[in-house]
Formats: sequence, structure tokens, C-alpha cells
Amino acid sequence: MMEHVKGLRCVRCGAEYPAAPGAAVCRCGGMLDVVYDYEVIRRKVSKDWFARCRDDSMWRYRAFLPVEDSTPAPALRVGWTPLYAQPRLAEKLGLGSLWVKDDGLNPTASLKDRASALAVAKATEAGADTIACSSTGNAASSLAGNAAAAGLSTYIFVPARAPQGKVAQLKVFGATVISVQGNYEDTFRLSAEAIDRYGWYNRNAAINPYLMEGKKTVSLEICEQLGWEAPDFVAVSVGDGCTIAGVWKGFKDLYAAGFIRRLPRLLSVQAEGCCPLNRAIHENAPWRPMEENTLADSIAVGVPRNPDKALHAIRESNGVCVEVSDKEILDTIRLLGRECGVFGEPAGVAGTAGLRKAAELGLIPSGASVVTIVTGNGLKDVANGIKAAGEPIKAAPDMASLLRAFAENGIRP
Amino acid sequence: MMEHVKGLRCVRCGAEYPAAPGAAVCRCGGMLDVVYDYEVIRRKVSKDWFARCRDDSMWRYRAFLPVEDSTPAPALRVGWTPLYAQPRLAEKLGLGSLWVKDDGLNPTASLKDRASALAVAKATEAGADTIACSSTGNAASSLAGNAAAAGLSTYIFVPARAPQGKVAQLKVFGATVISVQGNYEDTFRLSAEAIDRYGWYNRNAAINPYLMEGKKTVSLEICEQLGWEAPDFVAVSVGDGCTIAGVWKGFKDLYAAGFIRRLPRLLSVQAEGCCPLNRAIHENAPWRPMEENTLADSIAVGVPRNPDKALHAIRESNGVCVEVSDKEILDTIRLLGRECGVFGEPAGVAGTAGLRKAAELGLIPSGASVVTIVTGNGLKDVANGIKAAGEPIKAAPDMASLLRAFAENGIRP
Repeated sequence: MMEHVKGLRCVRCGAEYPAAPGAAVCRCGGMLDVVYDYEVIRRKVSKDWFARCRDDSMWRYRAFLPVEDSTPAPALRVGWTPLYAQPRLAEKLGLGSLWVKDDGLNPTASLKDRASALAVAKATEAGADTIACSSTGNAASSLAGNAAAAGLSTYIFVPARAPQGKVAQLKVFGATVISVQGNYEDTFRLSAEAIDRYGWYNRNAAINPYLMEGKKTVSLEICEQLGWEAPDFVAVSVGDGCTIAGVWKGFKDLYAAGFIRRLPRLLSVQAEGCCPLNRAIHENAPWRPMEENTLADSIAVGVPRNPDKALHAIRESNGVCVEVSDKEILDTIRLLGRECGVFGEPAGVAGTAGLRKAAELGLIPSGASVVTIVTGNGLKDVANGIKAAGEPIKAAPDMASLLRAFAENGIRP
Repeated sequence: MMEHVKGLRCVRCGAEYPAAPGAAVCRCGGMLDVVYDYEVIRRKVSKDWFARCRDDSMWRYRAFLPVEDSTPAPALRVGWTPLYAQPRLAEKLGLGSLWVKDDGLNPTASLKDRASALAVAKATEAGADTIACSSTGNAASSLAGNAAAAGLSTYIFVPARAPQGKVAQLKVFGATVISVQGNYEDTFRLSAEAIDRYGWYNRNAAINPYLMEGKKTVSLEICEQLGWEAPDFVAVSVGDGCTIAGVWKGFKDLYAAGFIRRLPRLLSVQAEGCCPLNRAIHENAPWRPMEENTLADSIAVGVPRNPDKALHAIRESNGVCVEVSDKEILDTIRLLGRECGVFGEPAGVAGTAGLRKAAELGLIPSGASVVTIVTGNGLKDVANGIKAAGEPIKAAPDMASLLRAFAENGIRP
């Protein structure tokens, strides 16, 4: 039994459930949240314990995760990604200090690996040998990779429009990939029917209460890497809301267990062309669906899956909401590449684009300490990298031509 | 001064030089090798020291690297990549044990980051603010990323045929990229002239004696991750020869310093369509140039830059040489994806393709322990990933269509 887990509680109606491996949503339709016994966590781990811990993955935080002690950690090394101090960029943006958390260095190159690793662990506990989900992007490829490493089968439902590159990742990892000739709504519905019919383990983030617990490990790492301090702000790009909700849960758990003494404020960044959650905060009104007009495909979510937890997190943290244009996203791909040597995908750098804008607009006090999370690797979307970065200089293979090309392009070596 | 470094020695004529940061080739044209004082290394570090070391990058091995104690470690977290035990795959291949070292999880997604990190450190020591190289691939993008993170400028010379994706990485990292309208030979020559003219720090692997020292850290990690043991064999893909030479240097240094008690044998894997170094071993004759007929672009090197060190390493280790076809490479992309959840680029998985072949041919004793190094991430070459992995199943968005699609494709969920 999971001594440190009290159970599951509905975020909407408060109903309580035991923490069964196959748990889904509340009978009222609300999402479930994992409730911990922080006394037990404190007996298991301490700052000293972590200082000696040699596990360089998210599984160093097992005491904070809803898994049995006996459940093996999945095979791929997920988490413990680098947190880079960026003094030059902090100065440019007028911040006191800035760190970039590069979560594109996870095994399948996105933060979603944290959730998929947990899904694989829970599927193992449930005795399942097959996991399924519907997704067009990083959730799918991370599930396929993490499941393959664990010897589990996957069924992945993608809409016909899914980009070829992400389909390639899925196929390389050996998933059975069903291209549904319809839109995303059709795809989700068919996956739900098939999951019911075949009894596969369900890794749809809108259903499974454990995935967010995997995602929260990014915050646990940030605090440990900062010497058990939270920054003033954490900037994060927001699509269906699961990631920002997971980020907030991580800080709250650490606070409740006595590992940090204050909580950060969240900076929720959405695309101008698709920002239903931020709009709800700005208008202080219920969220409404929106079109999906942005090149940042991973956060192009007009009907977010996890609005309750996400909106609650932003409000509870006294958060700031900012929207960014596609141009600002592309500019930030270049900025992070040039200043930090970090190449993010469009949705991956949107948080940083929003930070830049928030700093310019004076929404973040100068002198603040900020962590920005890059959630996915730019190699997942090379086309937009090219769009962001421009063309090389051309020169014939002799010194005179090189000098002419330098002069024409205003380059003075 | 670098107390633990005695100096540089020419691998061809034996001439000795001081270990200056800007050192290049010997006056006889031979490559230089770094010579260490292993007594000093033993005084600095021990197995106990490493057990307590919390540096999760290649810089934990600073005592084995030719850098000053005072030189700061470059900003990106290079190295300390995962070593995955693969019991299922070992059994399939008839091996005693097998580990996959996933070096595609380096910051710019290839093993070359290890060399570029060292180049940045040495450039800093030399007081340079600009580094240059010519390359079409991973060496270039890793230099651009590591230099950007350190605030250094880069000039990168690429031939006109350079793939767009890699050019995008370079441009995102802010390199000045010169597309030379000619072949690779033209490009190399123009870069050498420009480096001379402007006094840039030179990161051409054919010239700089320190790069290989960065690459050797992959072997140091393998041994530490195996509890200070070397495996029986290490499989590695071979292009210009720098990587396999670096891999061998790592084992030799650990052996000389008393950290391991035996050396592994190298498995040198080249493409059938481009294998000048393996051919030289098979024929026991000097190497001769070859055409570059393989889709594994990073090892399509008809005129290797580092033949002396590479051939010496293979021979000294009592190595085995195997050549693989493009089809075998593509099959292995799929195999590693499905069995291990690791997605490698073609050149990155060539070593594993060769291992598979060597095991089938009986060139590796059954029961042997083997490490195979995946040198680059499959997201660098999505086109070949798609070629390897095939197409998804199509279905209309209803259960009857899904059942029909499963039946037609022989899938029984």
C-alpha cells in the first residue's frame, strides 16, 4: 500500500476515492487530485537525504509520487534536466535573476515524458500490458517511447492531420498508430470507445489523475537545484492546462512538506490566437472555447482538458497572464538559441516569450527571480526553427568572395 | 599550469610539445596526443571521490581532462548520459549482457557536444572570443550551441549541400554560417584560410588535439556507470575516426590510472558503401579514399581525418570490424526504438547494427558483455526515421471501421 497517499479527491465536488491504479474521473465528471500525508513524506525524505541521493531522474522524488514502493522505476531516464543560470539574459530583460529549465532534454525530448513515465508505472501496478491514448503530439511520442522501453504495447490514435515527424517517432517506438480520418474530437471519441472495449490502460490526460503528479517533478527539481528555494515567478506555456496545474502542485507539495518556505507566482503564457484559459482569468468569467490560431501546435488547444485545475492554480498563485504572437514566439526561439544555446520548439519557448513581454510591460517587478521552463526540443519542429532563424550567407570558395560576402552582409570578423 | 598534463606528443614521429591552448598538428603533419601524469590524477581522484561527486556532467572527469583547474566548465550540461541495461535485447542477440549508451541526450543531441565543450573551454583559456570550424553536421551544431551558451561567437563553414535542418540549428544558435558554393574539400580549405587570416580559435577535429579528450569522457562514464568495469566489447560507428580514437583513449586512461583492471575490445562499424578504415584493417594495408555511398551522413567520410589514431585504436584493442548496409541501419533504427525506446539517427545506430551483424556472424562470443553507443538523436534526421518505421493504419472514426482496419492489418488487440 502507498502509506504516503491518503486517496483521491474530486476538485469539483470533493468526493473521495481510494487511489486505485486504474482510477479515472469522479462520477460528477470532475478531475481527481491525489491527496498526500505530508507527515509520512517527511519521515521518508529530508534535504540531507536528497543531498546524498544519486538517482539522477524524477524517481529521486518517489516519496512525493503516487506509486507503490515496490513498483520498478520505468527504464528510460526521465527528468533531472538541467537548470541553467542566465545572468546575461536576466540583465537584458531587467530581471534580478533568470534560470532556464531545459526539459527538451528528456528521453523523447519533451516534458511530457514525466507524465508518461508515471503512466507506465501505474499501468504496471494495474497489471496492464497495453496502454492507449489519443494525441497528436508530445504526449503520444513520450508514451510510445516510455512504454516500449518497459516492454508494454501501445495503441495511439492520431487525427489525419498529425505531422509526419511525430508519426515517425511513434512508429519508430513501435506503437500501433491509428490515423483517424476525422478531426481531433472524432479521434478522442474513438480512442475512448476502443479503450473501453479492450480494457487498455488509459493515458488520456483528461482522465488519468496520476499524470499531473509526474509533471509536478519539474518543480521539485527546480527547487532542489536552487538549493530548496522557489523563485519569485515561474513562466510556463499553457495549452490544455495539465502542465501548469502540475507545476503548481509540485510547489504546493514541497511547501506542505516543509521543503520550501514560500510559493512562487505563476506566469501563464498562451498564444494570442488561442488563449481560452488566460481570457477567463482576464475577464474573471468562465472559460469558453476558442479557435486554434497559432503555429505553436502543442499549445493550440481551443477546448482545454484541464481547465479547473489550471485556473485554480493561476488564481491561487496570484498569477500573471500574458498572450504572445507567433512572431514573438519565433523571436524567442532565436533569443534562447543565441543567448543560452537552448533550441526549443514553438510551444516550448512560449513561456519565455511571455516572460519577455511581461517584463517589458512591467507586469514583473524588476529584480525578480524567475525560472522559465522550455517544455519541448526544437528538433521536433525544424520547419519553424528555420522560419525563426533565417538563411546562411553564400560565398564562392575563395577568400575574395568571402570578403565580399562579409562586406555585403555587414559582417566585420 | 596543468599539473596532471605532461604535454603533447606526435602520434607519427614522437616529437613533443607543451600543451598550449592553441596547439595544432605536429610540424611533420601528424596529430598530437595529450600525455598525462597518472600519478597526479590518482592523487586528485579515486572511486570514493567519484561516489561522492554530484557533478552530473562530463566535468566530473576534470582530473582526466587537459584543462586548467581555474577554467570554468562551459554552461551547457554535456555528458553523464544514461546507460540503459537491455536484458531482452541481449537475449535476442545471444549476448551475455547489453547496455545502450544514449548520447543523443546531450544538449545539442549528439556525442559531438563532448568535443565542443572542450573546444569552448580551451578557447576561453586561449583568450579567444571567436571559434570557427567547417562541418556539415553534428560537430558544427554542437559548437554553435556550446559557444552561444558561453557568449562566444562562431563562424561555421558548410558546403552548399548541407541539410536544411542542421543549418537551422546553426542559425538558431546564432552562428555566422557561410554556405560555400563548392564541395566539402573547398569548404574545409576556405575555413582554414579564414581561420589563419582572422586568428579565430580552430575547432577542426583534424587539427585540434584536445577534442578527442572531450570525446573520451563517454568511456569514463560507461565504466563508472558499470561500477568501474569495462565491458568485453564496445560497439561504435566510425566516420573520420575521431570518436573511436577518443573512446579508446578513455579506456586506456582509466586503465593507466588504475580505475579498471582490463580493457575492452572495440567493434568498429562502418557503412558498406563507405568503409576506408575497416577496409585497411581487413586488408592489413594502408587506407585509401572511398566513395561516400550511405544514407548515414555523419559517417559518410571517404577521406577520414583521423586515420592514424583510429587504426591504432582498433588494432591495439584487438578489435573487430563490421560493415553494414543502409537497410541494416534502418532496421536497427526500428529495433532500438521498439526494444529500448531509443530513437537514433542513422549514423547513431550504425554501431548497434554492426553489433547485431557481428553477433549473427559469430564474431562476438556468445555470453559477452557489450556496450553500444548511440551517437546522435533520431530527431536530427526525421526523414530516415520515417523511411525506417513505415506508415500508420487508417480508419474512419467509428468502431466498425476500426475493427475492419485491425482485421485488414492482422492486428489482434
